Amino acid sequence: MVSKSQISFIKSLQQKKFRKEHRFFVAEGFKSVTEFMASGYQINAVYYTPAFDAKLHKLSKKVNFQDISVAEMQKISSLTTPQEVLAVINLPEWPNLTHTSLLNQFTLVLDGVQDPGNLGTIIRTADWFGISNIICSDDTVDAYNPKVVQATMGSLARVNLHYANLATLLPQLNLPVFGALLNGNNIYTANFGTEGLVVMGNEGNGMRPEIQQLITQAITIPRLGGAESLNVAIATALFCGELSRKRFK
Amino acid sequence: MVSKSQISFIKSLQQKKFRKEHRFFVAEGFKSVTEFMASGYQINAVYYTPAFDAKLHKLSKKVNFQDISVAEMQKISSLTTPQEVLAVINLPEWPNLTHTSLLNQFTLVLDGVQDPGNLGTIIRTADWFGISNIICSDDTVDAYNPKVVQATMGSLARVNLHYANLATLLPQLNLPVFGALLNGNNIYTANFGTEGLVVMGNEGNGMRPEIQQLITQAITIPRLGGAESLNVAIATALFCGELSRKRFK
Repeated sequence: MVSKSQISFIKSLQQKKFRKEHRFFVAEGFKSVTEFMASGYQINAVYYTPAFDAKLHKLSKKVNFQDISVAEMQKISSLTTPQEVLAVINLPEWPNLTHTSLLNQFTLVLDGVQDPGNLGTIIRTADWFGISNIICSDDTVDAYNPKVVQATMGSLARVNLHYANLATLLPQLNLPVFGALLNGNNIYTANFGTEGLVVMGNEGNGMRPEIQQLITQAITIPRLGGAESLNVAIATALFCGELSRKRFK
Repeated sequence: MVSKSQISFIKSLQQKKFRKEHRFFVAEGFKSVTEFMASGYQINAVYYTPAFDAKLHKLSKKVNFQDISVAEMQKISSLTTPQEVLAVINLPEWPNLTHTSLLNQFTLVLDGVQDPGNLGTIIRTADWFGISNIICSDDTVDAYNPKVVQATMGSLARVNLHYANLATLLPQLNLPVFGALLNGNNIYTANFGTEGLVVMGNEGNGMRPEIQQLITQAITIPRLGGAESLNVAIATALFCGELSRKRFK
């Protein structure tokens, strides 16, 4: 059973302002829910339909499990085709990022990425390449947006998303700032060293001028063909791949 | 003016069976339409609203331009927010691929890619990296699907898409066949030579066993973190980047 007020509460979490107010978000589907349960996230409640009963109870005894009908799942889900399980999860509070906390690793920085699918794919890609932190400008799409959570395929449970005023935070971190820009150094021959921030811009407008000013090394993915630009998730993946490949040589 | 029968004809091209029957497809938006006009594609008709009058007439005098209202554009468009221009374009007929036609280059092969956004992004990425041909299994999503056309951002005008029975065609081409598989050679250290086919599998199920059998070198993108898999467009981009970087060393 799920009450009317629970339905409207869970549905409200599809909107950023209610996620911020209540400090919860929603994840759906077996893979996503189990990844969050296996992570440090605090699970508030798990709603499941009969199909998932057996599997779920093995996962944890500490969680508030609620057995609901398929019709009820349809009412609380944000998906066109609801899955058999939905979790309400506490929004995390990450410790503040510092120079020291980001040494010996690369950290992605997103300046105004707008498309939930792009952000979800970037988080999933970062997770593949072992990147632990992504710093987003305050106007980047919210990582706890249901479409983003869905697109990360569970990776959001392992990559920490930090929202900040980039113009303030980046100089404080005092790390090399690599920026995906035109007319920079060739990504294939550039020297990235062992740590730094890699800044990607908005889908249509690229990086804001005030953020471009903070770049210590502009980096370009050389173009061989006719396309005017690369999708931001694709460009991010090419940076992640290039930083990763250095470990294998 | 656009007649009732024109409206239903143009709308019908949103479906693959009518595209196949009539041998036409639709592109929308200034960038996409102008890229097709500048390419070898044969344009059947261009519909435009008053906003685009001036710009369009500069493009070509040989094309059948039709001046329509915003309300009419809404009727023929597949977009939630229709743009100011829509073109009806002849489906191309590419010459058959042969061993000789694919020497000294890399060609992408997609085995059952289903998501229009993924295919569109793959085409756009291929175009960036100067890849001329993509071979798709017959059950790969149709490249002339309006969502794919939209996602390519005009790159479909420059990359040739071939649909084929891969199990028949690949052996005939007699080229090295690299496959994105688990437990293959490390992509960063593998020797790709100067030509070949790079095969990517379906989003959920990967590559079919009968296609896996045709792989001459399995290649793996090493994982450093926790994600179970990479999005297929991301994996394709990492292959394109790796093949491209060899030209810059």
